[in-house]
Amino acid sequence: MPSPEYPQEFLDALTAILGRRGLRIGEEVALLDPGTNPGNLRAGLMARPADAAEAARVLALCAGAGVGVVPQGGRTGLAGGASTRPGELILSLDRMDRVESVDASSRSATVQAGVTLARLEEALAPLGLTVGVDLGARGSATLGGMVATNAGGIEAFRYGTMRERVLGLEVALCSGEILTELSRVRKDNAGLPLRQLFIGSEGTLGVITRVVLSLVPIGGTRHTALALLPSLDAAIAVMRSVEAAPGASLAAAELMSGNHIALTARSLGIAQLTAVAPAAFGLLLVVTGDQSGAAQAALESELARASEAGLLLDCVLPKNAAEERDLWRVREDWAVDRVHPGGLWYDVSVPIDRLALYLTDLERRLARHDGGLAHYLVGHLADGNVHLTINAAVPITERYAEVAPIVYAGLKELGGSFSAEHGIGLEKRASLERWAGEGGVRLMRTVKALFDPTWVLNPGKVITRGS
Amino acid sequence: MPSPEYPQEFLDALTAILGRRGLRIGEEVALLDPGTNPGNLRAGLMARPADAAEAARVLALCAGAGVGVVPQGGRTGLAGGASTRPGELILSLDRMDRVESVDASSRSATVQAGVTLARLEEALAPLGLTVGVDLGARGSATLGGMVATNAGGIEAFRYGTMRERVLGLEVALCSGEILTELSRVRKDNAGLPLRQLFIGSEGTLGVITRVVLSLVPIGGTRHTALALLPSLDAAIAVMRSVEAAPGASLAAAELMSGNHIALTARSLGIAQLTAVAPAAFGLLLVVTGDQSGAAQAALESELARASEAGLLLDCVLPKNAAEERDLWRVREDWAVDRVHPGGLWYDVSVPIDRLALYLTDLERRLARHDGGLAHYLVGHLADGNVHLTINAAVPITERYAEVAPIVYAGLKELGGSFSAEHGIGLEKRASLERWAGEGGVRLMRTVKALFDPTWVLNPGKVITRGS
Repeated sequence: MPSPEYPQEFLDALTAILGRRGLRIGEEVALLDPGTNPGNLRAGLMARPADAAEAARVLALCAGAGVGVVPQGGRTGLAGGASTRPGELILSLDRMDRVESVDASSRSATVQAGVTLARLEEALAPLGLTVGVDLGARGSATLGGMVATNAGGIEAFRYGTMRERVLGLEVALCSGEILTELSRVRKDNAGLPLRQLFIGSEGTLGVITRVVLSLVPIGGTRHTALALLPSLDAAIAVMRSVEAAPGASLAAAELMSGNHIALTARSLGIAQLTAVAPAAFGLLLVVTGDQSGAAQAALESELARASEAGLLLDCVLPKNAAEERDLWRVREDWAVDRVHPGGLWYDVSVPIDRLALYLTDLERRLARHDGGLAHYLVGHLADGNVHLTINAAVPITERYAEVAPIVYAGLKELGGSFSAEHGIGLEKRASLERWAGEGGVRLMRTVKALFDPTWVLNPGKVITRGS
Repeated sequence: MPSPEYPQEFLDALTAILGRRGLRIGEEVALLDPGTNPGNLRAGLMARPADAAEAARVLALCAGAGVGVVPQGGRTGLAGGASTRPGELILSLDRMDRVESVDASSRSATVQAGVTLARLEEALAPLGLTVGVDLGARGSATLGGMVATNAGGIEAFRYGTMRERVLGLEVALCSGEILTELSRVRKDNAGLPLRQLFIGSEGTLGVITRVVLSLVPIGGTRHTALALLPSLDAAIAVMRSVEAAPGASLAAAELMSGNHIALTARSLGIAQLTAVAPAAFGLLLVVTGDQSGAAQAALESELARASEAGLLLDCVLPKNAAEERDLWRVREDWAVDRVHPGGLWYDVSVPIDRLALYLTDLERRLARHDGGLAHYLVGHLADGNVHLTINAAVPITERYAEVAPIVYAGLKELGGSFSAEHGIGLEKRASLERWAGEGGVRLMRTVKALFDPTWVLNPGKVITRGS
């Protein structure tokens, strides 16, 4: 039964474009998995276009009718970028889930926007290729959503964020037009770089319907170790030495605060880790190399050298695939949210030479503000990208705006970013206005209005029409 | 003496912003090196701002007065993007030539836009770092110009084009405002990605005044070889095998047609090369590696294997630095322009699995069109980027537009680009309109008008106001 919020005329027009099969209405929407944000499915109506042409017609219809339209991929965003309100229309890419072609020789793949990262990686593995972007939500995150948020993740330090992986895009626009720039080459400078605007704009300018990706060869055998370290400086030194070791290629350098490791290992019952010495930081290192075993030898020898130099408190070398998986579970699980629910998440980048300074200052600022605040950290060390959870004995969800300025203080002067890889969404909108300043916000608004003159596309996200 | 084209009032206002020292007038302009395009110095007036604030004031003045303003870096562009007409104002970045800071630990550098690539590399070398973009014009090309054209060059296949190297930008705008996004981190998603618009827009939207670059470690010792090959397929196979060889990292794979090698070696008198067997293609390979010599051994063993497999006609291994330099001279010299002046240049990208097909078809199309046309090729094989010179017994400069459709035929369908890395400038404007189509051109025009409502910025380049 259609919700009363949607005029019959609008529903009829939508059905004419998509057919009944291309729509989900009321309960059909409510029964879906809302993903990371309970607000994702608040809208009672979902359009499921089969291609860019249908998507563009839906956008034009919404632009004309003044109906807000929210693009959704895997609904795994962490900043509320896919959340909806009653009366809005969800535009789901779930029917556009075809890996259209993979070209092994020139190392590119063309996919519809609704393909998940895990599905594409499955298709690429037999060819010895990978996207070069990996993240915890790989099973649900779609390539379209990853492009729209310029996702980064674990491997950005060597292969870049999605912006570096994208060769071509197809984008449905509110004008009903389709921007088609399906280049399969890296060097392509054909006038103003329009497609770049859509990468990282979180569905506020258009809906990405097709993506051409540049692929990279799989690095070979993977070897993993967890280094436990007395300080961030030690973590950086160990990372750099492993990175420079001949025969090994650094594939991951995931940072965790000691309290994250302790809490998560206890929560998941990972014996391997509950026994290790308490450390300021853990660094989960992955190297790749050829079959000769040189990479593993290089990793172990760098860790031995670090230990001799007093940089290492302890070290865990998984003895089998299950133990290796457990180390990654500790990295990717977020036990702190179960044990102390109602914490606040922040996602910042700091040039790594300033990261220790930033974290020390942050600790001091938090303590001064409220002695009851604790913080936990995981992140991608080589990019200086840390995800912070700040919590207290009781849930503090409503204190986001109060704590944000404490977390963001000094970041701009350090050359960092208050918004690294999770996006602005709803969550960081107010912070963005302060960050970009009046001039920056005005420019963003004029660009937004150019592509979405009636402000129907992902309304309220990233940038608003203002007063 | 000021040219009569510039009203005294405009000159007075300009002098008030810049001082007399910040201006070059008449002969002071004409006596400069025009660079690659004789039209670069046709304008009789040059503004030389000392910083972004001055640049922004000059732009606002020009926007108000309706005076065309053409940004110039090293004047080494190949598509006429910096050419000027009498009555226009040149905005030179030559006084903004400071390497402001280099941060070795987080691998970033902040430079003013007028710094040349060679100067920056000189500053970086002692720290073991490099920009990761290299091109023939390294001595004159400025970082600002390289960002404005999204330069690619020799190393793009492993480190990306300038877009991938840029972390932050400062841009002077026609509104008199300055866009300041001087991030030093890779993961930075702070709202709509405005700075991306300026990368590759060839000075048509704003003037880049400062650049923050992501750096990469220098790869170690370099080893060079020239492989002479019977076919493009053989060249690709050899490149892939060297790329996959353990202990060596591929740093360059420069392709040359056999006729380019023969003509250039003869013209430069390089004995090393005048003796080799005639080949369809030459592939200049560079690998880097550690001090162990493993990289050189890997390169030589892959070439030996290729020879056994019948993929190699001949091979030149330079015995010393001078011989190595000579191989690069052959790659970077453009003897064909001296021997047969008046040829046409094109710069296209093709997915490398389709490159052989494209070149075979091109040869056929050219022969069918005019049996007197010859073609020469150099390029960056791993990116499928080839630079073509097409010439005849007599100069054919005025036949650019006639030959362009023959060169560009089928490129879009192959997923290639008609404009790889040299930019649109004046030269490819008409081709861009065909390539982008009516909708694409309209979008570009609206974006252009947003940043430059009076169309004074680099007038006539890339995209025009239309009819």
